Parts: sequence; C-alpha cells; structure tokens
Amino acid sequence: MTVTTDTTTLESGVRSYSRTWPVTFERAQGSFLHTPDGKEYLDFFTGAGVMNYGHNNPILKDALLQYLAEDNIVHSLDMFTTAREDFLATFTEQILRPRGLDHTVMFPGPGGANAVEAALKLARKVTGRESIINFTNAFHGMTLGALAVTGNSMKREGAGVPLVHSTPMPYDDYFNGDIPDFVYFERLLADSGSGLNTPAAVIVETVQGEGGVNTARLEWLRRLSEICREHEILLIVDDIQVGCGRTGGFFSFEEAGIVPDIICLSKAISGYGLPLALTLLRPELDVWDPGEHNGTFRGFAPAFVTAAEAIRTYWADTTLEDSTVTKGAFVEATLNSIVAKRPEGELTAKGRGLIRGLEFADPDAAQATCRNAFDAGLLVETSGPRDEVIKLLPPLTISEDELTRGLATLRTATMDALG
Amino acid sequence: MTVTTDTTTLESGVRSYSRTWPVTFERAQGSFLHTPDGKEYLDFFTGAGVMNYGHNNPILKDALLQYLAEDNIVHSLDMFTTAREDFLATFTEQILRPRGLDHTVMFPGPGGANAVEAALKLARKVTGRESIINFTNAFHGMTLGALAVTGNSMKREGAGVPLVHSTPMPYDDYFNGDIPDFVYFERLLADSGSGLNTPAAVIVETVQGEGGVNTARLEWLRRLSEICREHEILLIVDDIQVGCGRTGGFFSFEEAGIVPDIICLSKAISGYGLPLALTLLRPELDVWDPGEHNGTFRGFAPAFVTAAEAIRTYWADTTLEDSTVTKGAFVEATLNSIVAKRPEGELTAKGRGLIRGLEFADPDAAQATCRNAFDAGLLVETSGPRDEVIKLLPPLTISEDELTRGLATLRTATMDALG
Amino acid sequence: MTVTTDTTTLESGVRSYSRTWPVTFERAQGSFLHTPDGKEYLDFFTGAGVMNYGHNNPILKDALLQYLAEDNIVHSLDMFTTAREDFLATFTEQILRPRGLDHTVMFPGPGGANAVEAALKLARKVTGRESIINFTNAFHGMTLGALAVTGNSMKREGAGVPLVHSTPMPYDDYFNGDIPDFVYFERLLADSGSGLNTPAAVIVETVQGEGGVNTARLEWLRRLSEICREHEILLIVDDIQVGCGRTGGFFSFEEAGIVPDIICLSKAISGYGLPLALTLLRPELDVWDPGEHNGTFRGFAPAFVTAAEAIRTYWADTTLEDSTVTKGAFVEATLNSIVAKRPEGELTAKGRGLIRGLEFADPDAAQATCRNAFDAGLLVETSGPRDEVIKLLPPLTISEDELTRGLATLRTATMDALG
Amino acid sequence: MTVTTDTTTLESGVRSYSRTWPVTFERAQGSFLHTPDGKEYLDFFTGAGVMNYGHNNPILKDALLQYLAEDNIVHSLDMFTTAREDFLATFTEQILRPRGLDHTVMFPGPGGANAVEAALKLARKVTGRESIINFTNAFHGMTLGALAVTGNSMKREGAGVPLVHSTPMPYDDYFNGDIPDFVYFERLLADSGSGLNTPAAVIVETVQGEGGVNTARLEWLRRLSEICREHEILLIVDDIQVGCGRTGGFFSFEEAGIVPDIICLSKAISGYGLPLALTLLRPELDVWDPGEHNGTFRGFAPAFVTAAEAIRTYWADTTLEDSTVTKGAFVEATLNSIVAKRPEGELTAKGRGLIRGLEFADPDAAQATCRNAFDAGLLVETSGPRDEVIKLLPPLTISEDELTRGLATLRTATMDALG
Repeated sequence: MTVTTDTTTLESGVRSYSRTWPVTFERAQGSFLHTPDGKEYLDFFTGAGVMNYGHNNPILKDALLQYLAEDNIVHSLDMFTTAREDFLATFTEQILRPRGLDHTVMFPGPGGANAVEAALKLARKVTGRESIINFTNAFHGMTLGALAVTGNSMKREGAGVPLVHSTPMPYDDYFNGDIPDFVYFERLLADSGSGLNTPAAVIVETVQGEGGVNTARLEWLRRLSEICREHEILLIVDDIQVGCGRTGGFFSFEEAGIVPDIICLSKAISGYGLPLALTLLRPELDVWDPGEHNGTFRGFAPAFVTAAEAIRTYWADTTLEDSTVTKGAFVEATLNSIVAKRPEGELTAKGRGLIRGLEFADPDAAQATCRNAFDAGLLVETSGPRDEVIKLLPPLTISEDELTRGLATLRTATMDALG
Repeated sequence: MTVTTDTTTLESGVRSYSRTWPVTFERAQGSFLHTPDGKEYLDFFTGAGVMNYGHNNPILKDALLQYLAEDNIVHSLDMFTTAREDFLATFTEQILRPRGLDHTVMFPGPGGANAVEAALKLARKVTGRESIINFTNAFHGMTLGALAVTGNSMKREGAGVPLVHSTPMPYDDYFNGDIPDFVYFERLLADSGSGLNTPAAVIVETVQGEGGVNTARLEWLRRLSEICREHEILLIVDDIQVGCGRTGGFFSFEEAGIVPDIICLSKAISGYGLPLALTLLRPELDVWDPGEHNGTFRGFAPAFVTAAEAIRTYWADTTLEDSTVTKGAFVEATLNSIVAKRPEGELTAKGRGLIRGLEFADPDAAQATCRNAFDAGLLVETSGPRDEVIKLLPPLTISEDELTRGLATLRTATMDALG
Repeated sequence: MTVTTDTTTLESGVRSYSRTWPVTFERAQGSFLHTPDGKEYLDFFTGAGVMNYGHNNPILKDALLQYLAEDNIVHSLDMFTTAREDFLATFTEQILRPRGLDHTVMFPGPGGANAVEAALKLARKVTGRESIINFTNAFHGMTLGALAVTGNSMKREGAGVPLVHSTPMPYDDYFNGDIPDFVYFERLLADSGSGLNTPAAVIVETVQGEGGVNTARLEWLRRLSEICREHEILLIVDDIQVGCGRTGGFFSFEEAGIVPDIICLSKAISGYGLPLALTLLRPELDVWDPGEHNGTFRGFAPAFVTAAEAIRTYWADTTLEDSTVTKGAFVEATLNSIVAKRPEGELTAKGRGLIRGLEFADPDAAQATCRNAFDAGLLVETSGPRDEVIKLLPPLTISEDELTRGLATLRTATMDALG
Repeated sequence: MTVTTDTTTLESGVRSYSRTWPVTFERAQGSFLHTPDGKEYLDFFTGAGVMNYGHNNPILKDALLQYLAEDNIVHSLDMFTTAREDFLATFTEQILRPRGLDHTVMFPGPGGANAVEAALKLARKVTGRESIINFTNAFHGMTLGALAVTGNSMKREGAGVPLVHSTPMPYDDYFNGDIPDFVYFERLLADSGSGLNTPAAVIVETVQGEGGVNTARLEWLRRLSEICREHEILLIVDDIQVGCGRTGGFFSFEEAGIVPDIICLSKAISGYGLPLALTLLRPELDVWDPGEHNGTFRGFAPAFVTAAEAIRTYWADTTLEDSTVTKGAFVEATLNSIVAKRPEGELTAKGRGLIRGLEFADPDAAQATCRNAFDAGLLVETSGPRDEVIKLLPPLTISEDELTRGLATLRTATMDALG
C-alpha cells in the first residue's frame, strides 16, 4: 500500500478531523492509534465514542475473523440470517428485557442519522402531528430530518432549505439554574394561544456530546418524561453517543428510571466500528407497514456478530458498568483538580460516566490545549457551539495506567495553553 | 450460535424481504446463498445490487482478513488513514481520471441516502435555490431529503410531514413514446409564469431499479444533460444501484457521454457488502465549509480496503465490463424469448447490462413467479409501483452456467405462474 | 383637494399601474375616467374587471347614497345586519338556486386573496391532504397561500420563503394542442409511484386573466371536473376576475355545465368597486368551526347593498347575459379582423364573452400598443408572463358606440405599433 | 328590504359574532347600534376597534357622501387619483413626519392580513432570511403567512398545512414577572448552537387585542427594539387594532419612543369602516420591484377620503389624544374599583388608553358577563386563549355620559355573573 499521490487534493474540503490531526493513522489496538512511522497516540476520542471496547478488541476480532473466514453472510438487507437472529435474541434477552424494556427492534439503516430519521418519521405517523421539540445545542445528524432537530447553525445552514417542523427548548441548565426547569415549555403547552404546534415528540440526548458535554440532571430527565406523558407527546432518547455503556449502564437513561417511547442507538453498538444502527420502539408504536422504511445496509451481518459478542462479553454482569462508574469518578476528580488550580470561571468540569468535558471560558485556549495534547500523543477533540469544551471519550476498557497517563498529558496541555 | 427465541416477534413489523423469503440464510459464496439446513439459493438479487463481485469474493476476502488480522484501523471518521489514502488514490487514478472526470470525493456517511442528502444539500447551497426536479418512480432513499425526491407513495406517506421542495417530471418513456421527450419540463422552464420554482438540480437514475427497471435511453440522458446546462441546473446522477459496473462501464452514464455535476455511489462500491458511500463533486462545486456535513461512519476503513482491491482487480482492464455487456445481452435475449412465447402485452423485457426486468401486465403473476422461483432455489425480487416487474441483478461475476441455470428456472417459474 | 406635494415619493416603489398611466384620475362615469384637467379615457380595463356595471353606476349609486345617508350600518364584522341578510337572500335565491347550486356563502375577508385562502384552507381541512394542483400562468393572489398557487415567477420570488404544497399542471392548450388534455395529470394520479402528493384540490380559472387571457375550452373544464370527481379531489373555481357575468352567465363555468365544490368570487361582486369577497361551499364541505377563519372586513355592508341591488337590476332576466355574449362576439370579430390584417403568427385573438385578449408575438409591440392607446384616450393593460397580451375588460354595460370607438382606437394603436 | 328567508342557513357555519349577539342590526350612530325593532345597543366593541370615531361620524359622512355624489373615482387599483394623492400627502405631512417617521406608504390590499403579509414578505426579501419571531397569543390574520405568526391553536389548525417559518417567544409578563424579560430570546440569539434560525423580523402588537388585552410595558418594547437593532433583525409593529389613536397617540408605539422598521395599519385608518390597509416601510427597506406585490382593492378611494378627513379633523392637535388618555384613565379606575370589590385573583384589569380588559379567573363568568351586558344593551366581546378577558373598545369619541353608563352596565353584568 504505497501511496504517492497527495490525497488531500482528491477529497472534498468538507473533511474536518484530518485538519485537527494532520497525520496518517494506520493501525490501532486497545487505547492506541499508530502511524506508519511508529508514533502512537492515546485515544481519548475513540472515533466519537464508537470504540467503547477499545480498538480491534481481541474478543470481538476473533468472532469477526471467524465469521468472515467461514464465508458467512455479510450483506442481506433485512433477510433472516443466523447472525441477525442471534443478535436479536441476545440484545433482547440480555439488554432489553432485564431492564424492563419491551421495545421491538428496528434496523433503520447503517448510521445514527438513519435511527433518528426513522424515530421522527414513526413519531409523526403515530401521532398525526408534524412538530418536534428539540433542545438547544442538540446534535442528531446531517440528513434533512435529523438536521432540522440539530442546533449548530453552521451545520443547519448547510441544508440549503429552511429547516422547519422543530422548535428548540432550553436544555438543562441553559440559564445556569436561574430559571426553573421547563417553565417555558410547560407554559407553551398549557396555553392554547401560545402558537406552539402541538409536538409529536421530544427528542433528547441525556448528555449532549457534540453540544459541549452538557449533562442533564436525572430529575430533569424525569420531569421531561412526565411532561411528555401528561401531554401525550412521545419521548425519543437519542442514545447514539452516550448509550452502550458510556455513562455506566447500557442505556444512559437507566439511571433516571425513565422509559423512552423510542430509543436511537448506533456508534458503539457493534463494538468494533462496524456501521449499525437501531431504533427501539415501544411495541404499541410499531405501526410501520412492511417496507415503509427500508434501505440497503440495514442488516450488516458482521456488525451483528461483534455486537452480540460484545453483549455476551461485557454485559452479562456489572463488571464493565461498575468500572465505568469508577473510572468516570476518577476522571471527574482529576478534572476538578485541574479546574481548582485555575481562577474561578476559567475552566468548568462536566459530564457523566466516561463522557467528560472540560469547558474553557476562552475557546482559543481549548484549541491550544487540543494541539498541545496531540503533540504529546493524546487525541482529544473539542465540542460545543464555540468549540470551547474538550470532550473526553476514552475507551471504557482503558486501563488505569492509560487513563492516568492521558489525564496527566491533558493537565499539562491545559496548563501550557492557559499560560 | 443456537437461537431458540422466535426472533420475528422481536423485530419491528417494518421488515420486508424476510416476508418474501421466509428462511434463514447463513453462508454465501459467489452466486449462492446457503441455509443452515443445506439448501442453496442462486442469487439474482445480490442484496439489491450490492454484491456485484459475488458473495465473499475470495480476492477481496483475503485483503479484508489480512487488514483486520493486522489490527489496521477500522474506524476513524474522516481522519487520514493509509486505507483512506489508498482508496482515494486508487479510485481517482483508476476510475475517475481515465474517464475524464475531475470530481473530488466526499464521504457523506455509510449509506446511499447519505450520498443523496449530501448531493441535494450541496446543490442547494451552491445555487441558492431550494427546488429539485426528480422523476416519476424515482428511488433515492428514506431520509427526509432523499424521500422527498422518491416517488413511491407508500414510502412517502411514511414521512409524516409534507414532502416538498421537489417536482416530479416524467421519466423516459413515461407516456410510451406518445409524447416528445422533456416537452413538459422544457415548457415549464421556458415560461416565467409556469409556477415551477427554478430548480437547483435534477436528480436522475439512468436505470430505475426500485421503480421497475425503467431504462433511460442514452439520447434521453444526453438531452437531459443539455437542458440542465442550458438552464444552469445541476445534474445529479444517482448511480447507487446501477453504478460500479452494473450496466457495463464503471458508471452507468459513461455510455451516454455525459458528465454529471454530482454523482452518488454506494451499494457495490466496497465490493464486499461493507457500508460505504461517495458523493463525487465537480471541483468548482466543492464549496463545503470544513465539517459542514459530517457523520460517524464516513471512513469505514475495511470498506476502503475491499473497494480499492476491487478496483485493482476488476477495473484495470475491460474484461469485466466486456463480460457484463455480453452476459447482459444473453439475459436480454433469453427474456425476449420468454416474452415471445406469451400473448402480446403480457410480458415486457427491460433493462441494460446486468440489470434486467421482466414486466408483467398482471402484478399477481409477477408475485407468483417470484414464489415459484424461490421454491426452485432462485432469488429474484419484484420492483415497480405495483411490484409488477421482476428485477434481475445477478453478480457480475456469475458464471455462464449459473446464469443459464437461473434463467431456465425463471422461465419455468414464469410459465407456471402465467398458466 | 389641492395637492402640492409630489406624492409619488411618499409611496412605495411597488406601485405599478401609475407607471403605465402617469396621470391623475379624478372622476368616473360609466365607461369613462376623467382627469382634473378635463381629459377623458375610455376604460377597457375597469379596474381589472371590477367595474362590470360601469363606473358609479347610477342605480347602484342611488342605493348606496340612500343607505349611507340613513346612517345604516357600515361595519359589523359578521354580525347580522339587514344589509347582510338581504344580500344573502338575494344572492342565494336569484343567483345560486336558479343555477342549481346549493352552496353556502362564506365571507372570507374583503378581497379575492381572502376568498382563495379560505378555499385552500377548507379543502385541506376537509380532505386531510396538503397538496394543491394549480395551473401554469395561474393568478390567485399575493398572500402566502394564494401566492403558492400563482404562476408568475417575479411575484413568487416576492414571498421570501419557498412556495410549496402546490404542483403546476399545464393549462388548456399549453402545448398548442400537440398533447392530449390532462395526459400528464392523469398519469401522475394513476401511478402510485409518480411522486405526486395526492392533491386536496385543484384550483382553476376558466379564463386566466393575469396569465394572458388563456381561455379553457368547455370540454377541458368538463374533463377536469370529471378527473377531480374520479379521484376525490375538490374542484375550486376561482371566478374572481371572470365571474359576475364577465363571460356571459353569472358564473363563468355555467356554460361548461360543471358544479365546482368551492367557488371564489370578489372584484365585480359588489358592482361598485366596494371590497367584498365570497367563498361558496358545497354544504357538505362546510365543516368550519365557528370563528375558525375570521377577519375584520368580512361584512362591509355598503358592498352588500350595491351587490344585492346589482343582482336585482341585472340578473333578474337574461338581458345583460345576452348582451355580453353579443358584445363579446363583436369584439372577437373585430380582433379577428385585426389579426387577419397582419402576417400569420404576429397576433392572436383570445378570450370569451367580454374578456378578450390580443396576443403579440413581440411583447414590445404589445407595450407600444398600450401606450398608443393611452395617448389616444383608451385604457388597456397587458397581461401574460411576458406582458405580451393586451387584455380587454370593458364594462358589460358599455354602449355599442363606445365599444366600437374603443376597438377602432385599439386597431389604430396596434397598427401603429406594428409598423 | 323585506327579508323572508332565514338567512342563517344560507351562510357558512364559520360565522361567529352573530352567535354571541343573535339579533339583526340595522342602523348605527356614534356610540350606538340599532335594531329594526327599535332596540339600541351601546357599542363597546366598535367592530373590533374599527369605528374609533363613532359610527357614521357626521364629519366623515359629509365628506364621503359628497365624494360619492360627485362621481369621483371609487376604484382604481394603484392608479394615481386625487383622493389617493390627498391621502398620501395628508397622512405623511400630518401623521408621519411630525412623529419623526420617514416611512414610505405601501397599500398592500384592503385588510389587515394584507398589511401583515406584505410586511413579512418584504422583511424576508430584504434580509434573505425566512424565519419570523412572533409572540405568544399574537393575532395577525387568517391568510397563510399571517396565520403562521398567530398564536391561537384553533385558528392555526384551520390552515390545513403545517405552519412553519415562525417561532413564538414569550410576550411581556408571560411568566407573571418571574423571569427576566427576553432571557430566552437573547440566549437563543447569542448561542450559535441554539437551533433557532436567525430571524428576518420580529412582529409584535404593543397591546394584544385578540390575545386578551395583554399590554406590553414601554420598557419591554424599548428593549425589544434594542435587541432587534443589535442583531439586525427587522422590527414590525402590527398596529392594526391599537394604532390610529386607540392608546392615545396616533401610533401605539410612540409612547415607548421606538421607531419600527415596518408598521401595519388597517381597521380604524379609514375612520368609517371602509376597508383600507397600509404597510409603512423605512425607505431603505422599500426594495420591492414594481408590481411585485399587487392586488385589486389597494386603492379604495372612498376610504382615502374619510381617512384624510379624519386626520384633518382629529389629528391636527392633541385634543383627541388627550381625551383618550383621560377617558382611558377613567375606565381603568372604574375597572380597578370593580376588581377591588371581588376576592383577590378573581378579576384583573388590563390595558392602555381606550383598549381595556377585564380578565376573569373563570372563563364561564366572562361569558355570562357578556350575555348579561348584551341583555342590558351593552356590546362587549371576550378575547384571550380561553375567552376569559372582556375587551373594551369604546369609540374614542364616546361621551363621558355614555362611557359612565356603559361601565355601570358592565359592573352590574359582572357582579351578576360572579354571583
């Protein structure tokens, strides 16, 4: 594989991460990425939360290689395959039912945006309403339906048509606690003259990854769930980035004790970076006609294989969940200690479980910190409307040593950036 | 992998192919799918045109297994990887440039709908217009932007919101040759009082796979391209189903000698059923801001590996292209001989290269033919607005014997169905 | 009333007719307008077809002055008034019922756009569909709902938002007879894969006044009515410009023998230039909730008074209708004789009853003819997408002498313009 | 004028006021309406604020009758007429310029909805943005553009299509003072990730008549104006119901010292119940192409005549303005005394100038009060999302005796209703 062309000129200018990290990566193992010339990078980014079990996780790798070697089916749309049936049974019996969820499983397409599009379409079909409530700084995807409920104005303008049928409501703590939760939303719903189109659904992330690691309190999520129930509005939880154990439990909403009507999963669900997405539906909502929503890559069998294997390996008991909580607390404590070193208001620590954020009052300092970290062999990305929050998404399987080492690098990078 | 649950109850009722073919598939090789109990099915469906090089193609399989075994990078968003660079260079140098195409490559997400959404967004951004011209019986995907340019009314109603910003125009031969090509479209464009919003783009499939194997004549495509140029409307060719050699040349539009402004590829591009999609842009249209369109699974490295290997293996010379044309002619001749056996108008043969259709005046007979074929070990699906067209998408690598055998099965299935 | 300011600078640049006819008018009587300095203009424009009974018609004037002098109610929203009741009874008993129309009367607001907006809203409410079929070169008004079904691209761009929920179909003779009527519309309706959203309604003008005096044949209207019935699509006739006797019968569609589901009237309905609009509804469609559509000037009592008086005066027998047909035939013959004087294709005569058009192959010549006519004391306006059609809308009450004189002026103006 | 038919069956069920007041009115003079059988009603409704100078005001009546008697022009679209020029000069010189307003005058059509539609269209055209901010419980009209910025859910549902391109913000005191003004709006504007489409304009009523006589504080209006300026958002004041002196000064926003970019006027502008509407534009915003927005009844000359006469009669000095303020204070004091008689929270007095509201905690009591008042010869209507606010709109020219008498009737009606 010798590459002689400068391939950056061959690719659309829309590329972004390769601008932040201008090196070529080749191999990856566990918590590390490697370049051809032997540099290694500790990965606190994990492909935007996709590689929860580490890169090329050996258990999943074995299952995948065996599956492929045996000429099992790779591609089959929504035909029945042994891999599909195994995944459906494993996911339902080991993940859904033990958590009291009676949802059916829909395969809406290969990526998270497909899961969101299917959720929105079904919510509208079921309720006969068109309007969706989203939240400030939400991120749900780039296709037209998903983009309409996404907050980022730069990405919204890429639509080229007005993005309508959605109304943004303030996410938890949007006013720094100065205003009671949901006061605006509840008032608009109660007032028949408010001008708010009655919503089909609310779509929410329990932690807003792209939006800046904004973390909803559990009571805020519970109240949101109650409001939805009171007004017969469907509750969609987009657990694409923070589901699959990122916050501790398999679903990020478990801790709040709520049961969403529709749940979107993708990213880490296959456990190996293989494209897969699920939309989980309360069974009474599953009013699709056969084939009413379809698509080519809905049954990517290798992803079923690694996904089922990941469930068997990591979700048969609470070992991973417990370790995520413990590691998360360690990261939190470390971030707090960094924050405490700096003047009040310069830094803020955020997050839950193993999605953590370090918010900088000065976005330039966040950028500089990222660059410093990269130079020191640590991959962290920024998020938030002004790219002012460093987002930490280490593998859930990261070792304590790696975690300690990465956080030390981050501390130094931060201090150097802040001067 | 012992499955004890009846997994059909665990899955959303939206599933469709598993209703047509109520068996569980396990393995696949070349032109065949196999069930656990040893039955084999000759595959004239190939996952809706995804498996152009046959299932688990051994050359691609070797490359894939080696890549995975060496712990090369699987998931990396749009970071630079050796696999990405190799694909970009190979695709550009061996596919694009030899065909006189100077397009840049965008990775819009893992599936075809992502490619279409990105194409539509960019066309609107570039032109500042919102309206898109699509064609009757078009199929471009299930996300909200792609669904708006899709014809099927059942699927459109699944949107739950009015699908707007698009106007359908008659596809080639929509009036059985009774009306001159483009007479309505050109009149509307020429008349400033027509009420047609000036389109940003036209999106077209050269052969409509889902729409019923409707096959545009080359002169129709050329005239469409001219009209677009005359009116400064962008031409988007959705080559997701019939690109990658399905009609002979790598791109289905090559034969017509046109150069689309934007090209959508997916399905067969990876050659191995691995989710990958491309949106190809004339370089002057590549006005995206960095990150303006993003998404998680835009850089699925194993797909890059098999895609590049497929190009090196099958597109270094014209062997595959020539064989596709030859096999296509053979299928055409066979279908014509079946048609000729029946009363005038009962059957019609359609298609180009190795996408072929057999249209039944009676949709029930098409269904019965499919069932007969399945019972005899042949997978063929129907398409068209009334599911009245049997669509043949055999692997391009199918052997002559397999092709002959499958067509014989189809002939018998058809005759039995028609009585 | 001495005006010293140059008031053109005080008014928005959106004004248009005052650019065509840069004089100030003061008084009007019958077929003539007068300026303060004593010039008179024969009016073949009649305020875009508003003054069907001539300016300041003495019979209506008497009724109006008496009504106002007696301090009868002028403004009352939709409260009951004696004037309202008299109008409702007179209109229903003398206009609707004798024509076999059992429609109820809705007062949607003071102008034609209100009548159209109410019609579209009700059609959508009744059918639960959102899409409307309009026709090329239609004109239905400037408010957002009405503008979406209007053809003129300059006016559409004034909306500032994409105008959606409508699809234009070719009006009668859009292809000069080369293509069978409704072939495209019927094909799209019959094909469930066409991509056409099933329409709530079709809105049509029997003669397109603003669109260039395009005149639908009666059999085209009948076939349109049948198609609507076959597909359970509501038929809305916008009779705002050509109803109230303009084509002969009170309604322009009478001659075709069709019964629209919804009828829009305005312009000439008051007979005196007083703002009034009606939306007539087949009783089973009248599913409005009380007050669901409201507005301030829905019950302009002086307009009721003159409207009722006009009905009693002009519609008790067929005198006016007969005379309109006779005069229309005379205008037609005259226009034909003008056309016959010129090379083939340079001029075309169009129209029905007393709405007539003279279409110029060269729009500049149409403009020049208008200016010549104005200089010679005749008011005629142009219409059509390129302002290429001179539109004649003389008062229905015009005398034969006036009509002859005006046509002679037009002939000279035309010949001078064409050189 | 003998009416024998029961005309209620001839009219659409959409009628509403005739349900509240099931009598037929015939004549009107000053503050009173009269029925044919000699009953008289003191009018605290004035046709929803249209008859500010009383019914059939004798000064305006003389001007109108003379104008009509002399056969002056009644209808002329936007042609120059002496009446139009006189109005333009009078309105500009006596109303606009003395108030420091350099706006140009646009005649958008006969009613208030036309004024709003034109304002929204122009705001979008000027800014190139599509989104409008409206307020909770706003009322701006029934046409599709105006309805999208109206709050009432029953009326919104009448649209039959999703009403989009608008986002409601809380009106002044929407949270009873618990939340700082504009905290949500400003936060959304400041946050590029909020998901709010950048607005073209804000449209606001200084007092919400239909919304329940909600009265914005002057500092709230000033802050709104500042926010608009800071963010380059156009400010549209819809002064259709409370302009023309209703709150004291000619424009309701004068007192706040703000200068809106666009102003909508209608209802009372003609002074005689004659349909007329104005859209006033800051001259640099007047970018309309000639004829880009047009319409039939934009130049209703009799309305120009009475409008100009009303300005000369009532706005040459501050007599009317002063008396409105004085009378308003008297009404306020009376309402306060009624409120004080009842338990805390049962009644609330609202309003400014001579638009006043009495809000009932129990909407049924508001209805009963209206009925009691009607039985006692006083016309008052309810407003607000639950029809819980009795709205008082007496003529500005009402005598002290009439005002006192009406308020006494209202007091009794209220007390009887509350028991």
